[in-house]
Formats: sequence, C-alpha cells, structure tokens
Amino acid sequence: MYYIGIDLGGTNVAAGLVNEGGKLLGKASVPCPRGAGAIADAIADAARLAAKKAGREVSEARSVGLASPGSIDPERGVVLHAFNLGLDNVPLADMVTQRLGLPTVLENDANAAALGEFVAGAGMGHRSLVAVTLGTGVGSGAVLDGKLYTGFNYAGMESGHMVIHRGGRACTCGRKGCWEAYASATGLIRSAREAMETHPDSALWKLAPTLEDVDGKTSFDAAQGGDAVAQAVLDEYVEDLCCGLANLINVLQPEVLCVGGGVSRQGEALLGPVRAVLDREEFTRDSTRRTKVCTAQLGNDAGIVGAALVPVYR
Amino acid sequence: MYYIGIDLGGTNVAAGLVNEGGKLLGKASVPCPRGAGAIADAIADAARLAAKKAGREVSEARSVGLASPGSIDPERGVVLHAFNLGLDNVPLADMVTQRLGLPTVLENDANAAALGEFVAGAGMGHRSLVAVTLGTGVGSGAVLDGKLYTGFNYAGMESGHMVIHRGGRACTCGRKGCWEAYASATGLIRSAREAMETHPDSALWKLAPTLEDVDGKTSFDAAQGGDAVAQAVLDEYVEDLCCGLANLINVLQPEVLCVGGGVSRQGEALLGPVRAVLDREEFTRDSTRRTKVCTAQLGNDAGIVGAALVPVYR
Repeated sequence: MYYIGIDLGGTNVAAGLVNEGGKLLGKASVPCPRGAGAIADAIADAARLAAKKAGREVSEARSVGLASPGSIDPERGVVLHAFNLGLDNVPLADMVTQRLGLPTVLENDANAAALGEFVAGAGMGHRSLVAVTLGTGVGSGAVLDGKLYTGFNYAGMESGHMVIHRGGRACTCGRKGCWEAYASATGLIRSAREAMETHPDSALWKLAPTLEDVDGKTSFDAAQGGDAVAQAVLDEYVEDLCCGLANLINVLQPEVLCVGGGVSRQGEALLGPVRAVLDREEFTRDSTRRTKVCTAQLGNDAGIVGAALVPVYR
Repeated sequence: MYYIGIDLGGTNVAAGLVNEGGKLLGKASVPCPRGAGAIADAIADAARLAAKKAGREVSEARSVGLASPGSIDPERGVVLHAFNLGLDNVPLADMVTQRLGLPTVLENDANAAALGEFVAGAGMGHRSLVAVTLGTGVGSGAVLDGKLYTGFNYAGMESGHMVIHRGGRACTCGRKGCWEAYASATGLIRSAREAMETHPDSALWKLAPTLEDVDGKTSFDAAQGGDAVAQAVLDEYVEDLCCGLANLINVLQPEVLCVGGGVSRQGEALLGPVRAVLDREEFTRDSTRRTKVCTAQLGNDAGIVGAALVPVYR
C-alpha cells in the first residue's frame, strides 16, 4: 500500500511516496510558488516526481496527506491562515484532489511530524510519543494510544504556548511567559543577545561580531570554548527547556518524548544536561518506568512520512 | 448492568451501586479504619450497604472499582503508598475480590472523579473532558476520545505539578513554581496570609482573627465585603488558576474542562473572572469552537461513580 505525503514549507514543497510502515520509497522537492492555484500545481508536480523516483505512479497511491503550517480546518481540508505560504481560507485538499484524483487530507505540520516519528522514527515499537520541535517557535504533536491526538477542534498540542514564567516575555500568541519564548531557537538567540549586551567581554562577541550574527549555535560554540557567559545562557536555556518538557511529561506521560529542530542537532551536548534536569524535575523520577527522552530521528522527512500516514492514524 | 464504585478517603470509605449510565442507585459510607485488612473489610461492608440501599445484592454487580489516593499500580491492583490511609504496598484489589467475589480494579482518585464527571456530570454528551479539582492540592484527570487517559504508566495527568512560575514557590513534589502551589485552596490560603502580614488594616483580619483561621472562603468573603487587599489576592489567584487552565486547554483542547473542589463552590464568583482571563489567554480564543469551562456537577459522588465505571472506560 502506498501513500503520498506532502510537507508544505514557505520555501519548498517536499513530497514522498511512503509505504504503510512509514518507509520513504521516493522523495522530491520543488520550490514553493505564490498563489493558491500555483501551490496546488506544485504539490501535484512534487507528488508525481516522488512517485517516479520510487518507480511508481501517483495513481498507485491510496491518498495524499498534506502537512501545512499555520491554522487549518482538517475537517473541510481548508488552510485558514498560513502567513508563510500567503494562503488565506484556501480549500487546498479539494484542489489537490482535482489535480491528482486521490482523496486528500490536511493536517498541522507539527502533528504530521509527530506521527512520522511515531511510525518510523523515535517512537517505533511504542504506543505513545510526544514530539517537540525547537525552531523559530516550539512546535509539538502527540500520538497517544496509537492515534494522532489533536484536541477536539484540531487545535490541541500547542505546547509552545504553555506559560512557564507567568508575566514573563511577551509571546506572539498574546500570552506572557510562554515556553516558546524561552525554549525556541529564537528564545535562545534572544537570551544570548541579552547576555552579550551586559557582558561586552564575552567570547560570544568573537563568534558573533554583531547581535544580528547570533544564531542557535553561537551559545553552544562559545560555551564549548570555555566562555562562562555563554555557559550561563545555556544553563538557563536548559532549565527553561526542561521546565516545559517536565510539564508535558507530568501531564501526558508518553512512552517517548523526542526533541527535534535545529537546536536538537547539538545531540548529547543538549540531551545530557536535559536528562540531568529531568532527573530532578519529573513527578515520577523515582519510578522504574519513565518517559524515554531522545532526539528526533527523521529530521526533515518526519513531516512527509507523517503527512502520508495521517489517513491511517487519524 | 450494575457496578460497584468505592471512593477511599482518609476519613470515610464511600461506596455506591451504579448503572452503566453512571446513575447512582444507592450509596453508603463507613468510617475508614486503620490497617489493610480492616480497610478491605470496610470496603466490603460499604459495598454491601450501598447495594442494599439500591434494593440489590452485591453479587448482582459485575465488578468493583476502587478509587484510591496516593500512588497506585493499577495493573497489579496494588496501593503503593497512600499516606492518608496508612497503606504501603498493599494488594487491595485482590483483598476486595476475596471478600466480595467480584473482579476488582484500582484507579487513581482524580482519574476516577474525571470519569464520573465525563459519564454522568459536566461531560455528559461530550467526547473529551478534563476535570480539575482545587483542594489541598490540584488534582486532575482526563477522558480523551471517550477513554480514561492515564499516561503510559498510569502516572499522567499530574497537572498540578506543571510549573507556571519557574523558580517560584516550593512544591511538595520537589519542583518550584508548580500550579498546585498557587491554584490549590492551600495556595490561596497561603497568599491570603502573606497579604495579611503586609496589610494589618485589611478586613481579612476581621474574618480571620489569626492566620490559622484563614480558609479557602476567607478571601472571597472579604472581597465581597469590599476589601481591596482580599480582592488583590483573588485577582492574582484567578490569574494563576487561569494560567494553568489555559495551559491545559492549549495542550489538550478538551471539549469540556470542569473545575471542582472546595474553591469551586464559589460558582460564578470564581468562574466569571476565570472566563474573562481565558478569553485573553487561550490560543484559540478567536475560534467559534472553544473548550467549555464549567464547574464540576457531581461533587463528592464523582469518585464513586467514576470508580464504578473504570472497568468500562479504561
């Protein structure tokens, strides 16, 4: 059985042909154009290319799954608002069905990525997984008892907008002190910049001559070089990250919690300290059966694989 | 079909005979003795009394559900630690089966209460519900997609131990800044006492001549009488309460979120301000389909009803 998965991004439309076990048999990527019709055309092109790379035809697939950023209405297959894509109230699922002749479902991109990790990545062989992605924001998705969990109106798992510092940093969502404002790459960059402004002697300035040069790696590199200011930034970052992770574990107790996104590429340099803090913070820290915390395994393919399998796991 | 539900408390053992729709046909309560054997005897006595009040025999029931405080192992039916009951590693489910001749399951009391509200209270007619109980601590349980949700090792939904003020008040769980440390009745009482110490002129002192006299009602009563200090305590309390409620809504998006426990008896005096803050804080505050926030409806019966139906909804 074959399924097509599409990961819609502001820059590229990535497509893959996937089997029921989440194996990616062929993938392709085309630039994402502007305009709803052009985007639907690009999705169809990418899908055909991915099928061809797998030595198959699009018509051999059972369905198409679309992972979209922004806010969506999965029941009607409509992208409500996707700023990055310039889409506003677009019935994208129907438009793709018209072009490919296959039933098409729409899902939030963080949910799709979680499903991909569940089926073919960090969650393989388990019954539940929460996937957290540290990027511009903090995205998250969950598979609970073997099913994609989205909340009753498909807007759940907005864990990035869980407040951990009430009254703290202003968040894009309108709340103050959201986890995302601290634990995203953006949050880490902001913390590094704040530290640089109060510490003109920090080695952070050598790696980033201006504040605009700071990225998600800068603090890790400076700390590895022995800079105490960068280390303090990272220590606080890990505390904030773990605060939200421990909150999720205490509430959801998934078998696996995987962390993805740019920051997670630090691997054990990040996960080592994270596990040490969780050993102190988790409610069931003394239990023999604890949530396994690890890095995401599929990288950018998680969205394609998960999108393809949404019709199976929704 | 009849089911027996038991709500184990430090003071009383409450029992009920319940039908499959969660209707309480008869209930009884006996004092909770000390000692594992005596407690199992008391459970059996209470169950027989409850059945009798319903005009039935215990043998007509399909099963017994036990709601226990403390930490439990539902798979083995063992109460691991329940300080209030003086139980430590006790195979209570088997002990009850020996006495009543019925299959017996064990569940956490907050989970049982959530199930009771789902089937026969605030969640009737809905697919998902989160129940939050504001008492000595903050208890919570969830029914998601029609099934009791407990996490992979039955220790999930410890929402009270979700940090909302990182680095804040020390919590009994070892973390700092847990929701429970602010939003429980205990947290409210602590805040009132702190305000009294810095405001010797507050009317709080008229209602509570000493700090020991403060209870969960004191701030509400003083605020209603026009005391600005009490009002400020309550305003902060509502902000803290809503911070955690909005976190839960943003993560879980249940159809219904009900609030129970002593503090919730304030009804609209509490829920009015709560809804106003949630209108500002929820991620989907502009959506037409939002989580319904209301008070719990079954009061102390929620535990009995939910415990009885655990075998049906687990």
